[in-house]
Amino acid sequence: MDKKAVILLSGGLDSATVLALARSQGYECYALAVSYGQRHVAELAAAQRVADALGAARLQTMHVNLDAVGGSALTDRNIAVPETEAAAGGIPVTYVPARNTLFLSLALGWAEVLGAQDLFIGVNAVDYSGYPDCRPEFIRAFEALAQVATKAGVEGRGFRVHAPLLTMTKADIIREGVRLDVDYALTVSCYQADEQGRACGRCDSCRLRRAGFADAGVADPTPYR
Amino acid sequence: MDKKAVILLSGGLDSATVLALARSQGYECYALAVSYGQRHVAELAAAQRVADALGAARLQTMHVNLDAVGGSALTDRNIAVPETEAAAGGIPVTYVPARNTLFLSLALGWAEVLGAQDLFIGVNAVDYSGYPDCRPEFIRAFEALAQVATKAGVEGRGFRVHAPLLTMTKADIIREGVRLDVDYALTVSCYQADEQGRACGRCDSCRLRRAGFADAGVADPTPYR
Repeated sequence: MDKKAVILLSGGLDSATVLALARSQGYECYALAVSYGQRHVAELAAAQRVADALGAARLQTMHVNLDAVGGSALTDRNIAVPETEAAAGGIPVTYVPARNTLFLSLALGWAEVLGAQDLFIGVNAVDYSGYPDCRPEFIRAFEALAQVATKAGVEGRGFRVHAPLLTMTKADIIREGVRLDVDYALTVSCYQADEQGRACGRCDSCRLRRAGFADAGVADPTPYR
Repeated sequence: MDKKAVILLSGGLDSATVLALARSQGYECYALAVSYGQRHVAELAAAQRVADALGAARLQTMHVNLDAVGGSALTDRNIAVPETEAAAGGIPVTYVPARNTLFLSLALGWAEVLGAQDLFIGVNAVDYSGYPDCRPEFIRAFEALAQVATKAGVEGRGFRVHAPLLTMTKADIIREGVRLDVDYALTVSCYQADEQGRACGRCDSCRLRRAGFADAGVADPTPYR
């Protein structure tokens, strides 16, 4: 039987590519989506479409009421989603405090229950250089934590955190996905997609995605509203 | 104004003592309870009583559907809560995979939103030596992670994870709480408390608690059913 892996799946372009990569490496893939009060609930429907299309063994959705805490344009309706370039060197208002730490914690717990030792996350240090939890030092620190935090780690069945997109550009990611037959029309990247999953075309996430298709020389299949 | 701290509060004896300790050290205390599909929902009512009685600035309850994942007697109704001594050296079935990693992740995110740099958690390596995420190496690894995982950490406002009960016996903890006027009748430790918060008196947690009061020479105020 294939080795099991837990794949964090948002319904966006990056994590769909990660799922395809993990499948191509022979993993039996358990996809984990997290509903955390983000505006773009359309992403969760996209996650289901992507999990089905790319052969995940299962999609599990975890719910966490991060909107009770706020602190980000993605969890607090009083903070507007930006439609201008993120300030160079600054951390964008779309940063959700400790989000990837939380996501990996949920993935780690599920992995331990499943007997999986491999976690996959689609973080990217090139396009999201402003996010502290999209950097290699974050991935390494979480991996170190996982060994001491769990029964599996203590008993010698340690965990690997794979972040295969870490140093890829958006165009690199798209070319890799096209090679692996990912249908990007199924994915939603927009920070303010409508209920049908149609993108605004103006937010930071839309701009990065659109430029990625252009740079990759691939026709952009995104449904814009 | 007092420095802010986030205190993980379960409604049990240990975390109530931690809240009292943090208050005695001059912190403005933001209590965080996590509802994760545990059987003892009575703990959440206890957390509110304790937060009120010990002067927390606020109690925030986070909800996470860990019961969807299972893997522990505390999240899966198909696994019985043990009423016999935990096997020496083994990890009990009440271990919830990656639970304290998840709890600290939620505390870290809220702390960053609040501008707090201090997190308190009532883990204990003496009575819960079987839990990997109740050990000093876990606390240190999470603290290291917090510095690289967050905007605050990257910008030099790092985090401290306080685990003041780490090396205390249950009797030590109870004596410290009595000194700080903690009313332990408000707390619920039982793994299978009823809706009124009355304890079974037989599970591992009840036995540890009862022995702690005896060892401390303090009358046990626990309501047993």
